[in-house]
Amino acid sequence: MAVYLNDQFLNNDQAQLQVSDLSMQRGYAIFDFFRTVNGVPLFIDDHLDRFYASAAAMHLPMNKSREELKHIVQELLHRSSLAEAGIRLLLTGGYAADSYSIASPNLVITCNPVKTATPDDFEKGLLVLTYEHQRELPHIKSINYIMALLLQPLLKEKRADDVLYHNKESITEFPRCNVFIVTKENKLVTPARNMLRGITRKNVLALAATSIQVEERDISIAELFSASEVFLTSTSKKILPVLKINDSNIGNGRPGPVTTALYRQFIALERNVI
Amino acid sequence: MAVYLNDQFLNNDQAQLQVSDLSMQRGYAIFDFFRTVNGVPLFIDDHLDRFYASAAAMHLPMNKSREELKHIVQELLHRSSLAEAGIRLLLTGGYAADSYSIASPNLVITCNPVKTATPDDFEKGLLVLTYEHQRELPHIKSINYIMALLLQPLLKEKRADDVLYHNKESITEFPRCNVFIVTKENKLVTPARNMLRGITRKNVLALAATSIQVEERDISIAELFSASEVFLTSTSKKILPVLKINDSNIGNGRPGPVTTALYRQFIALERNVI
Repeated sequence: MAVYLNDQFLNNDQAQLQVSDLSMQRGYAIFDFFRTVNGVPLFIDDHLDRFYASAAAMHLPMNKSREELKHIVQELLHRSSLAEAGIRLLLTGGYAADSYSIASPNLVITCNPVKTATPDDFEKGLLVLTYEHQRELPHIKSINYIMALLLQPLLKEKRADDVLYHNKESITEFPRCNVFIVTKENKLVTPARNMLRGITRKNVLALAATSIQVEERDISIAELFSASEVFLTSTSKKILPVLKINDSNIGNGRPGPVTTALYRQFIALERNVI
Repeated sequence: MAVYLNDQFLNNDQAQLQVSDLSMQRGYAIFDFFRTVNGVPLFIDDHLDRFYASAAAMHLPMNKSREELKHIVQELLHRSSLAEAGIRLLLTGGYAADSYSIASPNLVITCNPVKTATPDDFEKGLLVLTYEHQRELPHIKSINYIMALLLQPLLKEKRADDVLYHNKESITEFPRCNVFIVTKENKLVTPARNMLRGITRKNVLALAATSIQVEERDISIAELFSASEVFLTSTSKKILPVLKINDSNIGNGRPGPVTTALYRQFIALERNVI
């Protein structure tokens, strides 16, 4: 697969950074990830908006314009010959002589096959576990996923699909997905703070606004468990229903009507925007 | 300077990892850092103990024994011809095909010139700022220093030397150093939880136990500001007095008697242990 690294196009195993890079020294880097549908990048402007915002929040200078980034992505897609690809932009702190000061960032863009959720995955739904953890700087798409990876053995042991983070008061997000609930009063609710603003989340909110009352606000753990439907959104998972949380079933154990309607709308949307 | 990378000795710029490494993809790596005095590694067993503990806590398999690591360090010191060197061991999550699952770790050991605090630095002391932040998994020496690097512009603006983290209740640590206070009752106190257990901290505690009452426990922010002396400890900074915190002077603006006595003992210790 093709990789872009600092003005060069390389093969995957040629794309290497020196160990003095701040990503390896201090975990200091940001990224974004989007996919193509029939060769066309989905919601690319939303993703580039967030990529530039993350870079600015981390004081990482970006010397490539949006148009230049789009050209690089097109060239990677051309070289990779993938209809369904996952594009990952990574911007690191650069080679720091003192292992601590931000240097000239390294920009890496990879293009690889992507596995997205299928209609079968939607029907099967997910079992998730709640876990108390508040991500640092959750509004920035940094590379810090230490807690998420540390929790993988727990998920395996409990045969669960994912972990839903909460802080002392509210649920916030999954490590790589946003959370939505449908309340008993048939409102669609999703957290508005202490989480990353997902691009699929944004598009689902826009779709939903035409058919259901939408609220962006804190959701307590009690309200989560009393929800009639729960689902998650992400670039590769699209929309997936959560059918069980810890030991409690949500709804009747099958994807609910609101989740199903939004899923159908979203699948139609991604075919339309390209 | 010499670098060891997965059974090879290389020059600094040859030591590179593929961008699929989990350190770059997910900030997933641990490290440790120690220095030499007259060519002899200081407190190397303490550092290797902590390195193995961090690796185990992050589920990173280490297939090198302590004796093998010591041999590699000796070879790096020999190749580098440095009497005063900083040795950094880095163990990453490895090349992950899915960007998410722990793979075969990459082990990198670097050997570079090290700048340590001088007697002049000790006399000058430090101005520090308090900042509310609790590090994730603080007992593991992971590579996550995002907050520390993000705060660098604030330190520059305020002309401060470092930032002292606290949570809602207690002070915890500096990004790379431990904190000690001397109370009005002439007790030496240092936090016991929510921070990384430094090797210099451990050795200072052992030195202090012969001459002053020592307590390892939480320290409130109020107690910090009422302390007669405050100092920090780290591998490269050794012991440095904190003479000002935010806008408040600590003590009389000069290094205090307990800090000075411990500093002299520590300098003698590092000459003796080699």
